[in-house]
Amino acid sequence: MTTTTTPATATTPATPEVPTDLYVRVQHFYAHQMQHLDHGRFEEYAATFTEDGEFQHSPGVEPARTRPGIVRELVEFHKRFDGDPVRRRHWFDHIALERQEDGSVRSTVYALVVTVRPGGRPEIAPSCVVHDVLVDGPDGIRLKSRRITHDQHF
Amino acid sequence: MTTTTTPATATTPATPEVPTDLYVRVQHFYAHQMQHLDHGRFEEYAATFTEDGEFQHSPGVEPARTRPGIVRELVEFHKRFDGDPVRRRHWFDHIALERQEDGSVRSTVYALVVTVRPGGRPEIAPSCVVHDVLVDGPDGIRLKSRRITHDQHF
Amino acid sequence: MTTTTTPATATTPATPEVPTDLYVRVQHFYAHQMQHLDHGRFEEYAATFTEDGEFQHSPGVEPARTRPGIVRELVEFHKRFDGDPVRRRHWFDHIALERQEDGSVRSTVYALVVTVRPGGRPEIAPSCVVHDVLVDGPDGIRLKSRRITHDQHF
Repeated sequence: MTTTTTPATATTPATPEVPTDLYVRVQHFYAHQMQHLDHGRFEEYAATFTEDGEFQHSPGVEPARTRPGIVRELVEFHKRFDGDPVRRRHWFDHIALERQEDGSVRSTVYALVVTVRPGGRPEIAPSCVVHDVLVDGPDGIRLKSRRITHDQHF
Repeated sequence: MTTTTTPATATTPATPEVPTDLYVRVQHFYAHQMQHLDHGRFEEYAATFTEDGEFQHSPGVEPARTRPGIVRELVEFHKRFDGDPVRRRHWFDHIALERQEDGSVRSTVYALVVTVRPGGRPEIAPSCVVHDVLVDGPDGIRLKSRRITHDQHF
Repeated sequence: MTTTTTPATATTPATPEVPTDLYVRVQHFYAHQMQHLDHGRFEEYAATFTEDGEFQHSPGVEPARTRPGIVRELVEFHKRFDGDPVRRRHWFDHIALERQEDGSVRSTVYALVVTVRPGGRPEIAPSCVVHDVLVDGPDGIRLKSRRITHDQHF
């Protein structure tokens, strides 16, 4: 393998530069956004997208589009839990940002879904990666698109 | 469900505004605070509360009050691990802050408890939510109250 | 136990002070660094160390030294996964920083390794603590040394 013999170069910073303030606002945005989702506040979750936002929550499915479309998709998706007293929590880690040429921000984030049923122990699955495109406008951060990939599919 | 037909409105920011500096100091506060707790440094953990701070670590139990009271409660609680070589780590995620009218800050945070015994694999349970009220004074951030809810009780 | 009777003192801040900007850049550094590692970009991972950086990924093994040495060590270590379609993700939590007298920054971080195989469920083990020494130079943050301890060894 050539990787063993080529010396590592490091003439560029190891981390893409983004403003401190932006990085922190993205973290806080995710915190509220995902607590909205996990508490079934689908309107509030959808409102974190741009008007024309796209949300593909599972690989291979058609993305939901626009805020009403995202709400509809979430209501539909959660029907599988009707009568199943389940609580789900989406954990995020390692928010890696990269500024795009058009001013938007690409965000790549680890995610784990924690599922709990009454009296049970948490199941932690699946492991995913969140691929977001964020825009930072006058009303703050919004998601232009979100696409989820699953680690166990490869 | 009306949520499928009501269009989402988004006239307000999706995320409550808090100063960047405050958000970061809360993150760092939690990092040191929980490492104190998990390493059995109960005095240091108690010192992260205000003098009259309240800590309810489990639903349904009477909260511990004042720093000495919190230390006593922790010593008492950890007697269950006497002779049991256990290491526990409290993980936090999605720190959602909201400024209160009195100047304090409400903080709602996901938590998972990781428990490890020698040679064993980590058990990850329970899944909790941390409900904190923080104050930011001349000595930095302190907890006015902490209340924990458990996800498997519902 | 004397801890039950000694009142907690809190004349010092509960959290070591570090600049907000530094704390955020460390978070972002880790996000990209660990995504490099988990995607097998060993050159990029090694480039997050100083030229003379040291990396001890497991207790009791000799640390790898210099960037080419770190790449070699990672290539060697990952041979155990040859023919094993495994995906690993290193989660971090509770980044606790402390400025050292020489200007470097000590960083103590919780870590969990998430391992996924096709069609399987994530295994979450081991639970570790990352002990880093960071330097903040003209090219941004770099790791001077990283040492990992494992929670199930004690």
